[in-house]
Amino acid sequence: MDPIRIDDPQDPRVAAYLDIRERDLAGRQGRFVAEGKVVLDLLLSAGRFAAESALVLENRLAGLEEILRKAPADLPVYVATSAVMDAIAGFHMHRGILAMGRKGAPQSAEALLDALPAQALVVVLVGIANHDNMGSIFRNAAAFGADAVLLDVTCCDPLYRKAIRVSVGAALKIPFASFADTAGFTAMLARRGFEQFALSPRGRTDIRDAQRSERMALYLGTEGEGLPDSLLARLHGMRITMSEGFDSLNVAAASAIALHHFSAKES
Amino acid sequence: MDPIRIDDPQDPRVAAYLDIRERDLAGRQGRFVAEGKVVLDLLLSAGRFAAESALVLENRLAGLEEILRKAPADLPVYVATSAVMDAIAGFHMHRGILAMGRKGAPQSAEALLDALPAQALVVVLVGIANHDNMGSIFRNAAAFGADAVLLDVTCCDPLYRKAIRVSVGAALKIPFASFADTAGFTAMLARRGFEQFALSPRGRTDIRDAQRSERMALYLGTEGEGLPDSLLARLHGMRITMSEGFDSLNVAAASAIALHHFSAKES
Repeated sequence: MDPIRIDDPQDPRVAAYLDIRERDLAGRQGRFVAEGKVVLDLLLSAGRFAAESALVLENRLAGLEEILRKAPADLPVYVATSAVMDAIAGFHMHRGILAMGRKGAPQSAEALLDALPAQALVVVLVGIANHDNMGSIFRNAAAFGADAVLLDVTCCDPLYRKAIRVSVGAALKIPFASFADTAGFTAMLARRGFEQFALSPRGRTDIRDAQRSERMALYLGTEGEGLPDSLLARLHGMRITMSEGFDSLNVAAASAIALHHFSAKES
Repeated sequence: MDPIRIDDPQDPRVAAYLDIRERDLAGRQGRFVAEGKVVLDLLLSAGRFAAESALVLENRLAGLEEILRKAPADLPVYVATSAVMDAIAGFHMHRGILAMGRKGAPQSAEALLDALPAQALVVVLVGIANHDNMGSIFRNAAAFGADAVLLDVTCCDPLYRKAIRVSVGAALKIPFASFADTAGFTAMLARRGFEQFALSPRGRTDIRDAQRSERMALYLGTEGEGLPDSLLARLHGMRITMSEGFDSLNVAAASAIALHHFSAKES
């Protein structure tokens, strides 16, 4: 790996990194941005997505050698001073480690489900539009061994820069796919033998009393409105019991509790 | 309650609301800012802190009548157009509901502990410097019935605007106090009969096997370094078991799992 020194922020070789924040909103034609050492490490070691290049602050390069050894030998690694890097990104990059990844062709929900093992736990997200929550849910899914995340089309993109960062790279590790028709997707899971649970304050079963099944799907909805009634009617409703005076829980916190619960080893 | 119309952003009656974001950094002389309907409701109904005034977008006033009825009759309620409110706050206030509260004299950790009931669960935070995490931990503490939060002096302020917002007002409801000397504080808890548990990846007991005790303290440290060894040596270490390939959990997520676990009703 021969680092390529970049002195001109307008150098076409780093054009993909120009104005990072504005591009977040406009999209970036099949690419995503990975930030920071831990996330770069996951991008290169998980192997789920192809890395296209890296852009690193000159004084961070030495500390990255071991991680960059996991990259293909021909991965361009651009190196810049702090001033040049800030001018490229359009704001102060205090972490000093960026990489560009390729989204590739999205896998269909059906293909993803068909690739799962006999014992599997999948997380199903409906209407999660906040990138912090999306990233946190992926992080929890990875920490507690979920096999996949399935997202309805109203969810935000797990490969948005902030979602990847908050996920500490889990969004680059855990397979995910989108589905358009929720009723059709529920039927698809049922045909594959998944027991389907929904976290909802109106759920009949306290989650403490819920048992892990061989194949299970855990549905999480938005904080405000929650999962739609039409969907809840078709799933096992499960609640997390809270204080009477303050029954408000962030959806990512709820995912942590539920995924931890179901990650218990059989005794 | 007679709303007071504000047409001039420089009106001295709303001086406390000027340049909200800059004041967040500079501090605001014993005041804090509550944002949004739910937080205003908690400020007025919890009664832990005195409200000094409210500043509301004119078209939000009608929807707040019921909540404002909980306020003292002499609470000044300022009303402004969107343009005036944005000019006062210094950025676009899309929620359109602000209130100023008084921090009052801080309660000592000792006085707070002495006021607790015989059965009590307290959360002890060491080095939590991120306002998102602080707010989320308070929210979880409220959701699962913790009685108090104790903070070492390296923690950030739970009454910082963003921490209050993320806590959905829990920071205005759950009593909290700071302590300077961690060893002295640990001894203070021990004298009052608290069993003291620390969440740590190196903890010997899986949290699933930990029992709630009559009086218990749950210590949480920073994500990076965790709790200091000198402290861990004096506490019962408890771990949250994670996947082998991804043992990374946000401290707020850890608090959700632990507080949910210990909020279980005795069977």
